[in-house]
Amino acid sequence: MDDIERSRRRFLKEGLALASLPLVVTLSAYGQTEQPAASEKTPDEILKAYGGRSRFVTSERIEVIPGMGEMKHDPFGLTNHLTTPLQDSVGIITPNSLHFVAGHAGFFVPDIDPEKHRLMVHGMVDRPLLFTMDEVKRFPSESRIHYIECNSNFAKPGHKTVQDAAGRTSCAEWTGVPLSLLLKKAGVQKGASWVIAEGAEDNRGTYSIPLAKAMDDCLVAYGQNGEPVRPQNGFPLRLLVPGLEGVNSVKWLRRLTVTNEFYMTYNNMGRYTSVDPNIVQANYVQGPKSVITFPSGGQKLPGPGHYEITGLAWSGGGAIRKVEISTDGGQTWKDAEIRSAVHRIAHTRFGMPWDWGGKEHVLMSRCTDEQGQVQPSVAEFNKLWKPESRGEAHPNFIMPWKLGSDGAVENGLS
Amino acid sequence: MDDIERSRRRFLKEGLALASLPLVVTLSAYGQTEQPAASEKTPDEILKAYGGRSRFVTSERIEVIPGMGEMKHDPFGLTNHLTTPLQDSVGIITPNSLHFVAGHAGFFVPDIDPEKHRLMVHGMVDRPLLFTMDEVKRFPSESRIHYIECNSNFAKPGHKTVQDAAGRTSCAEWTGVPLSLLLKKAGVQKGASWVIAEGAEDNRGTYSIPLAKAMDDCLVAYGQNGEPVRPQNGFPLRLLVPGLEGVNSVKWLRRLTVTNEFYMTYNNMGRYTSVDPNIVQANYVQGPKSVITFPSGGQKLPGPGHYEITGLAWSGGGAIRKVEISTDGGQTWKDAEIRSAVHRIAHTRFGMPWDWGGKEHVLMSRCTDEQGQVQPSVAEFNKLWKPESRGEAHPNFIMPWKLGSDGAVENGLS
Repeated sequence: MDDIERSRRRFLKEGLALASLPLVVTLSAYGQTEQPAASEKTPDEILKAYGGRSRFVTSERIEVIPGMGEMKHDPFGLTNHLTTPLQDSVGIITPNSLHFVAGHAGFFVPDIDPEKHRLMVHGMVDRPLLFTMDEVKRFPSESRIHYIECNSNFAKPGHKTVQDAAGRTSCAEWTGVPLSLLLKKAGVQKGASWVIAEGAEDNRGTYSIPLAKAMDDCLVAYGQNGEPVRPQNGFPLRLLVPGLEGVNSVKWLRRLTVTNEFYMTYNNMGRYTSVDPNIVQANYVQGPKSVITFPSGGQKLPGPGHYEITGLAWSGGGAIRKVEISTDGGQTWKDAEIRSAVHRIAHTRFGMPWDWGGKEHVLMSRCTDEQGQVQPSVAEFNKLWKPESRGEAHPNFIMPWKLGSDGAVENGLS
Repeated sequence: MDDIERSRRRFLKEGLALASLPLVVTLSAYGQTEQPAASEKTPDEILKAYGGRSRFVTSERIEVIPGMGEMKHDPFGLTNHLTTPLQDSVGIITPNSLHFVAGHAGFFVPDIDPEKHRLMVHGMVDRPLLFTMDEVKRFPSESRIHYIECNSNFAKPGHKTVQDAAGRTSCAEWTGVPLSLLLKKAGVQKGASWVIAEGAEDNRGTYSIPLAKAMDDCLVAYGQNGEPVRPQNGFPLRLLVPGLEGVNSVKWLRRLTVTNEFYMTYNNMGRYTSVDPNIVQANYVQGPKSVITFPSGGQKLPGPGHYEITGLAWSGGGAIRKVEISTDGGQTWKDAEIRSAVHRIAHTRFGMPWDWGGKEHVLMSRCTDEQGQVQPSVAEFNKLWKPESRGEAHPNFIMPWKLGSDGAVENGLS
């Protein structure tokens, strides 16, 4: 069975709407997920060259294909997601192999040869530029630990685990060139106010970024946790736009167009920025959010005793300053301890020792960022966001976990 | 071909001294590097569950089997190493699959079922304890970014690349329980002064750790970059002893014995602590060290122009405060810039923009840590360490790279 035939069978098996995409692009894009030709190395030699997990470690991402009802603006039904197993997470780094993926053109991951990849910077600039990957790497690099979160990371009553409810966020050390350096090199012209970032996938993943943000802390990233950005996350180049909804961080970056106007792109239109101007303004910077990863939905405490409640907190507004934990559904709160380094706009690990006596509890976490912003309750969130606009908001409300007297943990949303 | 036959063939192929080891242990230990049973998932489904690299990214560890001349204290010739490809590194995190390995019993990686693994704490304690992995995780965790370096990371004139010359150091976010908490839980008795840590591999990897260090900043680590410690690095538990030579960080940790005396263990004896009491004292804390990773040996600059010189600096003495770069073999120095977060006892990324005119240069980096300790030149290092004791010292002398007028980079040691 050759590659094309294999691709075709898989394509048919997944039952996507063939008519909506040109077949030739599809087949070529599918090439990315092919395995390399069989290695001549023994399994032992392969593991020496590039190690693997213990056979007892089986933590996996889960594929989620939101239905039209869930992603109401997705006209093609092509938004496929892979969620990070946060229930198994420790520390703040997400392993690259488990980093969440939010595909806006299904899973058609481009198979890009970095030698042939080019990044164009043009539009309202004095010197339009075209960079090879080697040229990008001649600029001073910056390495920073940042989370990315998809605004579809919306906990719902039906979600059974923290992976379902919050697994569309991950955190990595990203290495790249400050976008501001590339723009300065090109010479941004007076009057420019937006940068339109375009990816190399089928639907280009184009997105409009405010110029002020582009000149601030964005990275044109080629490194993810010490190695090249993974294909599913944008190899060989990903734009990193810290603190804004994940769709800003355009993958497979190939073009930056400097303009004096907001482009209503395919991604800007549907996911997730609303056409309501108030919402466009409001939902750019993601607010403070936290979630308890242990004990969380689907886990079971073996019996009364001493435990460590632990989880992750983050904010697009900067560093996490405080995390509180409630074991009584939000009536009383205690300060948790920070259990990791605290980086700006990054996952932060928190924990609190707890003696469980065997009764029912509702566990919650609530964080505060360096701006003093406090994570809202469901009720507070609902006051700000009408149900019909929830798809555009950053869903950062407090997530409750119900601990039963049998030790079983369930989603506490109603 | 069944598993045992496959193990036997590989074993014979690698030509190790069969007579020195009981065969049954060898076969069982080899089981670890077996692949799990073939998955029923398609390659596409496998990559969705646990992603992989681009097929264009082929960076690998290299296996190094030091000869008896090089590792003079290795009576069995079983010290095998895998080196990290630092020439391809970006940022400060080493991907788990590329973390260096220094095997003190060849590559016999134990195949440990975490459900069955136990950690014993005994000796001069009030309450001898035996922990399951779940019990270890009930303690408060700590996540910290730390480097580990083997004292055999000794650059020599014959080394062609930075991977050869300095690839026995890596850096990861380690998550675990502070060793001090476990010792306090057990109740250390008056008069105790050492902790003997023992691993589960063939030769136990036992090592003597001063109690003061054990009560300070050591971690009993179960997490490495957000997932379980990798088998080659000690799954399911590794002792992390920050800033001391890597052999202290005992892998596959299964026993901690509190005593009132230093044990001259197999590892303490041969590698790498000398029996010379002055050296035992002197070489515990690793000094400041840095290395240029680009441009480095084996790389070639395509022609005169603007480049970013970059590399890594670290110290067992704490945080890196300054890195300097010389392009004239150490006659003049300029401050480099720090390009990453600065963590204590961790790799730190530095860089300096540089215009290369096309002449010959000798490139060097030199770092200073928070204690004011400065990385020594080769001449300064040689004053402190007699040639016959070099195997025990932390080899932190300045590494020169010779850049030719053709752009080729070579080892500058003589």
